Amino acid sequence: VVGKVRASIIGASGYTGGELLRLLLQHPAVEVLSASSERCAGRPVTERLPNLRGLTHLRYVPAAEIAADVDCIFLCTPHGVSAELAARYSAGPARLIDLSADFRLRDPATYALWYGRTHPAPELLEHFVYGLPELQRGAIAQAHRIAAPGCIATAATLALAPLLAAGLIDPQRIVVDAKIGSSGSGALPTQATHHPQRSGTVRAYKPAGHRHTAEIEQALAPLSATAPTVALTAHAVEMVRGILCTAHCFLLDSANVTAAQLEATYRDYYSAAPFVRYVHEAHGVHRLPEPGPVRGTNYCDIGCILDPHAGRVVVVSALDNLVKGAAGQAVQCLNLMCGLPETTGLTAAALHPA
Amino acid sequence: VVGKVRASIIGASGYTGGELLRLLLQHPAVEVLSASSERCAGRPVTERLPNLRGLTHLRYVPAAEIAADVDCIFLCTPHGVSAELAARYSAGPARLIDLSADFRLRDPATYALWYGRTHPAPELLEHFVYGLPELQRGAIAQAHRIAAPGCIATAATLALAPLLAAGLIDPQRIVVDAKIGSSGSGALPTQATHHPQRSGTVRAYKPAGHRHTAEIEQALAPLSATAPTVALTAHAVEMVRGILCTAHCFLLDSANVTAAQLEATYRDYYSAAPFVRYVHEAHGVHRLPEPGPVRGTNYCDIGCILDPHAGRVVVVSALDNLVKGAAGQAVQCLNLMCGLPETTGLTAAALHPA
Amino acid sequence: VVGKVRASIIGASGYTGGELLRLLLQHPAVEVLSASSERCAGRPVTERLPNLRGLTHLRYVPAAEIAADVDCIFLCTPHGVSAELAARYSAGPARLIDLSADFRLRDPATYALWYGRTHPAPELLEHFVYGLPELQRGAIAQAHRIAAPGCIATAATLALAPLLAAGLIDPQRIVVDAKIGSSGSGALPTQATHHPQRSGTVRAYKPAGHRHTAEIEQALAPLSATAPTVALTAHAVEMVRGILCTAHCFLLDSANVTAAQLEATYRDYYSAAPFVRYVHEAHGVHRLPEPGPVRGTNYCDIGCILDPHAGRVVVVSALDNLVKGAAGQAVQCLNLMCGLPETTGLTAAALHPA
Amino acid sequence: VVGKVRASIIGASGYTGGELLRLLLQHPAVEVLSASSERCAGRPVTERLPNLRGLTHLRYVPAAEIAADVDCIFLCTPHGVSAELAARYSAGPARLIDLSADFRLRDPATYALWYGRTHPAPELLEHFVYGLPELQRGAIAQAHRIAAPGCIATAATLALAPLLAAGLIDPQRIVVDAKIGSSGSGALPTQATHHPQRSGTVRAYKPAGHRHTAEIEQALAPLSATAPTVALTAHAVEMVRGILCTAHCFLLDSANVTAAQLEATYRDYYSAAPFVRYVHEAHGVHRLPEPGPVRGTNYCDIGCILDPHAGRVVVVSALDNLVKGAAGQAVQCLNLMCGLPETTGLTAAALHPA
Repeated sequence: VVGKVRASIIGASGYTGGELLRLLLQHPAVEVLSASSERCAGRPVTERLPNLRGLTHLRYVPAAEIAADVDCIFLCTPHGVSAELAARYSAGPARLIDLSADFRLRDPATYALWYGRTHPAPELLEHFVYGLPELQRGAIAQAHRIAAPGCIATAATLALAPLLAAGLIDPQRIVVDAKIGSSGSGALPTQATHHPQRSGTVRAYKPAGHRHTAEIEQALAPLSATAPTVALTAHAVEMVRGILCTAHCFLLDSANVTAAQLEATYRDYYSAAPFVRYVHEAHGVHRLPEPGPVRGTNYCDIGCILDPHAGRVVVVSALDNLVKGAAGQAVQCLNLMCGLPETTGLTAAALHPA
Repeated sequence: VVGKVRASIIGASGYTGGELLRLLLQHPAVEVLSASSERCAGRPVTERLPNLRGLTHLRYVPAAEIAADVDCIFLCTPHGVSAELAARYSAGPARLIDLSADFRLRDPATYALWYGRTHPAPELLEHFVYGLPELQRGAIAQAHRIAAPGCIATAATLALAPLLAAGLIDPQRIVVDAKIGSSGSGALPTQATHHPQRSGTVRAYKPAGHRHTAEIEQALAPLSATAPTVALTAHAVEMVRGILCTAHCFLLDSANVTAAQLEATYRDYYSAAPFVRYVHEAHGVHRLPEPGPVRGTNYCDIGCILDPHAGRVVVVSALDNLVKGAAGQAVQCLNLMCGLPETTGLTAAALHPA
Repeated sequence: VVGKVRASIIGASGYTGGELLRLLLQHPAVEVLSASSERCAGRPVTERLPNLRGLTHLRYVPAAEIAADVDCIFLCTPHGVSAELAARYSAGPARLIDLSADFRLRDPATYALWYGRTHPAPELLEHFVYGLPELQRGAIAQAHRIAAPGCIATAATLALAPLLAAGLIDPQRIVVDAKIGSSGSGALPTQATHHPQRSGTVRAYKPAGHRHTAEIEQALAPLSATAPTVALTAHAVEMVRGILCTAHCFLLDSANVTAAQLEATYRDYYSAAPFVRYVHEAHGVHRLPEPGPVRGTNYCDIGCILDPHAGRVVVVSALDNLVKGAAGQAVQCLNLMCGLPETTGLTAAALHPA
Repeated sequence: VVGKVRASIIGASGYTGGELLRLLLQHPAVEVLSASSERCAGRPVTERLPNLRGLTHLRYVPAAEIAADVDCIFLCTPHGVSAELAARYSAGPARLIDLSADFRLRDPATYALWYGRTHPAPELLEHFVYGLPELQRGAIAQAHRIAAPGCIATAATLALAPLLAAGLIDPQRIVVDAKIGSSGSGALPTQATHHPQRSGTVRAYKPAGHRHTAEIEQALAPLSATAPTVALTAHAVEMVRGILCTAHCFLLDSANVTAAQLEATYRDYYSAAPFVRYVHEAHGVHRLPEPGPVRGTNYCDIGCILDPHAGRVVVVSALDNLVKGAAGQAVQCLNLMCGLPETTGLTAAALHPA
């Protein structure tokens, strides 16, 4: 890459697109050419994104005005819309990073099963690489099309991969109990996100059948002799940004596993991953991962705890659903695709207290 | 019982004792004689409990001034202190309801295992009945000494009992992922409950080894052919009052279980339990149990969801940790012990929005 | 009144109507005949009001089905709709309690000024009494039509009345800085109540021009030699239920006013008001009014503090916007109109912690 | 300055010191030599500051080990302790930036009045410059000793200065109603910050007599012909970081002031201030300042609204109490003192949603 990477965002008035805009505007090697929103076309982006006041005078344009001859186009569009746009830009020169679910599942039949509809563009699926750098950094660096993973899928997959790769746990009895903040529901108000009914609760909004289940199983399958089955339940908790995934895994041979061995397994597995921090201190309030210390950052913090009583490992992972779970991970992929250091533009620390 | 039940509370400046005071002061068949607190002795209870302003002029007394010849003494004292007090009052005429953990586990060896110390009064254990009315209403009605269950234990046991009694699930692979509000930590400030570090987080504060595990297993053991093992993880979430327990259970024969059968199992099991509501509506934000609609009440709401993909049942239960998880359940036991209708003094509805 | 008061609620799917339903269903002298909602007609009220599960099997009906020959009809309808309904029921025998703003201002010109439209039913205005019992208990007891005050108006008027009546403050320099929870915005989701944008903020949503200003000035005018001007600013804070009003008043003769005199002024003024608690303790976290200890109750807590440096009195008042600020106050009026003790059905204590 | 500015922080385990550490570690022109904490000496700073994991391996040292020959020493110590330390380092070469209140008030008598004690080091007062760059950029650039302003004082002073300088308002009737998040209470847990009692409330914790009053009046006095009197009330709201100040000011000649004139007054006054954003949009949820869009940043957003009814201007200002209200402002002063661009190290955007 000579000069700055010229990038455009389609769908920049929602939370994911807005977060991407924040990251790209502060990215030292990227120039944001345009940002689209049908609803807000013509308006300054700062009307939707008050945090960017003073940082940019960009105005939203309609998607139709996004030029094809840029270096990278980010699709922050709803599921289904991305597939249409991907088809439109598929012949063009631009790299494409899709943050929707349209190209995450490689098998159209799996897509049909979990999304309840025929895949809208199955012929494009083979061009997309699943954008989880910690599991396939090499493929991403070579890719021209990226399907950025789901937020819960990222937290769960990173939590489980080392254990499955090490063959330590029963792949048929994996429970993932996820807790997510309200920004995960997107920018459109609904009864479920109406403050009086969302505040002070914890709600099992998707006890079974969550679509990220399929992504997690697909991402983990290559690591395990037996294809894993994931029992995922998603909860809404009182928090704006953040996910905490608690993975409950049953050890195959619990008598012969030590806490030290578990820690070593994780540290080795992620030794080259700049955004995974292994967190398990001896004491203190923040001794295990939680959303605060990763908020606004691209980190995924992971810690695991041995439970000899139940023959179980509890793996706790935390990330910011809009950063490592969406926009930040997309930037991380962009960095890899462009030969930039993986952490470029993603180094700001979280706040404490958060 | 002729006339009102004369009751005293030892340890009424904490959250559990304060909540009990609120319930008893409004109970139509109870007269509160005294409430103790060493720290606050001589001060009006409304200094600690501003919600009771206008309702009472009671002042705290030292525990030493609590008379033995009342109808019922409630112990809302820390673990260990209750055992001492129980010994002191054991020869007296008063019924004793202990809200600490001291007399919940029947086997001193189990106590030693989970509490890391020798039981302080093993000779008294046989006199105590575990005060979970939904599982042993009859024994409580006959009892003179009650050990009120833990808050998470209540939520988990009520969620799991019907499935184990019906022999539907694998008793060795039970995951309980509990989420609890900050009042569960008690009234004393610590780093973990300091608002800036407790707000907006979800924290796995006890990923394994939670002491309520032993209670749950003890309460469920009689219902299951094989002794159950519970894999419990407790999380702190941003909320003041409330518990949501998500129990992940693997079906023994998942091909032959239907959602309707599960619902019938629960409705039958709790057909005589006025404080268990089976909640699983077809749609709506509040279609499953959550803490809001039980806040301030003695209800435990329970719903269950079939997950054919993972061969799993997800059971969700919600209660108010200070009411059904502590003070309300103690009053429910008192009602049963005194021959009063079980719901006396416990009928106020929750608020919505909460 | 012989037998129970037969009541119906028009507009019972919103927060105000829902709260009224909660109070009336538990009211010992009221029978709820029907509750209307166009949107939810035919559905159980518990779908919208999960807190009432187990308490009622009532279903919503269309407003057209609400019979006119009941003892009392409550209008919990939007501003404008109430005026139409009041006209419809004006010839009927039922008492009418309107919780909208339609009949609060006696002068149609004032209404036009603050609401930006001609009053929809000026001929009915004279039949309505402003339902603030602490200021006009007698008129309410004689009334057949009540206009229940606004929530902020109630908190501000009760805070200011004693000072104006005593002639202690400058009536032209009264600042009321109100803070209100999200339930005050009603049950319909908007961008302003969308959890990610409503959580963790404090927002001056109506810095000037708030319509309750007119109500407050109208209610206070009779108490003051000079007509008062109120400078009201309304803020949204992170909280579901509750209002805290901070009134900043400049003393006319600050050198000659003592804190004891201020307290006596308030205690005297409200000596016959069962729902006003004067709260100003020497120390402690909850030494002044705040929303927690009044949540779910019909109390308005008031305390005042002398500021010699600025020649100011700070009056702090707290209430639950859905109870004393709406549904509870309506029930209080009903009690007075029906000759019942003023506190009937309104005696439940708040929770602590809230 | 040649090379990086070598800085040390005394008192880096609290929130202010921790925030300063975050900013300095990411500052391109600063090298952090050491950070002290008596309590945590020997421990990694990341134990207290989990947000800095992966960013630093620094360990706390006792204050006694902080060398005097650095370029700048920041004192994040409690009031009183700073004065002792300032004396210790007063002969040294290091610039001193004190974040406590010890050197903010120029007159020891004023200090005695508001702090209730004799000033501990009156002979040092003349060496300190009040570190509010927007009001005295020049003096700070020449200074060797800085007293960083209080958080509420910063928000209030910046809100009021343009109006007083323009002579538009009555300087004797200024009401400042401040709302602040829990981090403003510091890192030590108390009853007032205990989550169950701090959550979901809004509390007038300092209705009158707040010590920042004196700072505000001192800072504003030079701008006004008549010395201003500020009537300040401080509230705790449910939020971790952030202040919203609502200043209610009465216009001297309200008939002749327009909204456009007010806006121009502010824009002119702060035309050279990179961290003051004038925010008053025509519509939208975030049309006025609020804490979200400034969280984690050094901005102070200000907007003002004309209230013709009451002859009032409402000025709303928002900042992050730990950044512009403490650590960020200290860094801004350091930049000015060292001849660096004022915004160096302070350019990261806030998150949205926050």
